[in-house]
Amino acid sequence: MKILGIGNAIVDVICKVDNDFLLKNNLTKSTMKLIFDENEFKNLLKTLKIEKTVSGGSVANSIVGLSQLGNKTGFIGKVADDNFGSKYENGLKKEKVEYLYSKKKERLPTGTCIILVTPDSERTMCTFLGTAGKINENDINSNAINNSELIFLEGYLWDEGEPKKAFDKAISSANKVAMSLSDQFCVNRHKPHFLNLVQNSLDITFANEQEISSLIDAKNFEEVVNFSKQLNKLIVITRGEKGAVAIEGDEIFECGVKKNLKIIDLTGAGDLFAAGFLHGYINKFSIDKSLEKGTELSSKVIQQIGARL
Amino acid sequence: MKILGIGNAIVDVICKVDNDFLLKNNLTKSTMKLIFDENEFKNLLKTLKIEKTVSGGSVANSIVGLSQLGNKTGFIGKVADDNFGSKYENGLKKEKVEYLYSKKKERLPTGTCIILVTPDSERTMCTFLGTAGKINENDINSNAINNSELIFLEGYLWDEGEPKKAFDKAISSANKVAMSLSDQFCVNRHKPHFLNLVQNSLDITFANEQEISSLIDAKNFEEVVNFSKQLNKLIVITRGEKGAVAIEGDEIFECGVKKNLKIIDLTGAGDLFAAGFLHGYINKFSIDKSLEKGTELSSKVIQQIGARL
Repeated sequence: MKILGIGNAIVDVICKVDNDFLLKNNLTKSTMKLIFDENEFKNLLKTLKIEKTVSGGSVANSIVGLSQLGNKTGFIGKVADDNFGSKYENGLKKEKVEYLYSKKKERLPTGTCIILVTPDSERTMCTFLGTAGKINENDINSNAINNSELIFLEGYLWDEGEPKKAFDKAISSANKVAMSLSDQFCVNRHKPHFLNLVQNSLDITFANEQEISSLIDAKNFEEVVNFSKQLNKLIVITRGEKGAVAIEGDEIFECGVKKNLKIIDLTGAGDLFAAGFLHGYINKFSIDKSLEKGTELSSKVIQQIGARL
Repeated sequence: MKILGIGNAIVDVICKVDNDFLLKNNLTKSTMKLIFDENEFKNLLKTLKIEKTVSGGSVANSIVGLSQLGNKTGFIGKVADDNFGSKYENGLKKEKVEYLYSKKKERLPTGTCIILVTPDSERTMCTFLGTAGKINENDINSNAINNSELIFLEGYLWDEGEPKKAFDKAISSANKVAMSLSDQFCVNRHKPHFLNLVQNSLDITFANEQEISSLIDAKNFEEVVNFSKQLNKLIVITRGEKGAVAIEGDEIFECGVKKNLKIIDLTGAGDLFAAGFLHGYINKFSIDKSLEKGTELSSKVIQQIGARL
């Protein structure tokens, strides 16, 4: 296998609602709300008619992108043995991603992101992480990891305790490790752990400018560049409208953004950038060409709705 | 006077160049480079044909926006007694902004941002801060500040030493104080000082989600909200595609982004958002309506080139 992703397995559940539904449920349009109470989540879902489901999650979105580009891919992410769990598995199979996790009965249901689409095309999201965040060592298939050229992890999944052990096991079995820092809050939450991963365990780190700046409390972008240079690893940084930068030892590679895009929805921009870059990496493109492929895919995905091309 | 801005006085110098010019001068397309060496800056400028100049800088952009909306405005920002200094002053006067600074001979020239426009419409910037960053107590006109309902400061201008003293003097003479945190690196550089300003000196703080999250090392957006609530001041946070939020004591106000925009250039998005919000604030709009006005102006400015509507 070329590349194996390990991440949050989240079923995106897309439902059409009217504006009143948001008001009644005290939801703010266009925002994402994390739901921690299982009953609250179930009650919300009960009242909805499901339009369609998509097998989502950050790394899963990247892996589907890599599969669509013709790479042999696999994914490990924890679902429950329930209806959404089956939908998740089937969704990945349909995209020719090998699903390397056997679902079991769980205390918590499959992780779900309810996407409420109002008549104005706005998307309001309610996420219940469910069993996705409960990944542990036993969920990690060392053989599959060892048979992959590269594994790709997401910061969102990292947590103290069981998920940390799952990461450690995956990293120790892997040939090469890439990871996305996922989000600035994630970085603030786990700063010393993430710093340790970036410095000692990862071959490739994906971050946006905010995430890596928070990681090292950078006072300017030069500090980010200098930090990255002395690591002697591959650090790939997306900078919004300033484009993307890759740093490997003393070498810096840059790629500008595409202009005159009609941006519809930023969902999946980072995930598809990583997919494009990693496609280049595992197919031995130059770093410049890998950055270009990442930029090409992220430019495409933001001109449409959702994280799938 | 309704509102008086204090910020970096930077002349935007717009020049058309070809791609070779960037290559020859070792510039990366679409990026902003800070130039610290005066000779490097002068040599670069010497070879260019100036298309036009605009009186720029973050707070200055907001103040021009407020003036265009019909408010009585003023601006303090430090230029030198040179050609660009005169252009800066005249540029503001043309926009009916009262310029409350008397230029003097200075060791450093007027702050300048050279904007190189290539045939593909990309903008590559080289900024030489010049005398703009050397603001000191004597540059601050206490009477003008005391005669304004509100002053508006930018984090970019804050620095240890003389600029800090200038801020302290301005704040102690002001009726009300608003400030933008400007950028995440700025926040990381001056974290304890900015935190002190937000907690003790400012009536209104403008920040984007990254900036305020870095300020308090927030682990999620709820921490940002809780921090803001207990301040009992007005905190206005822009969240990119998630819209904008204002928090005042226990009250939270939200406003979603406009969709289906053809985004051309993000320059000035934050500056014009602040202009729209402050227009609402000084004209006694509700906070909801002020957020809407900010969103309206920022949506307009990103669908065109440059920070001027």
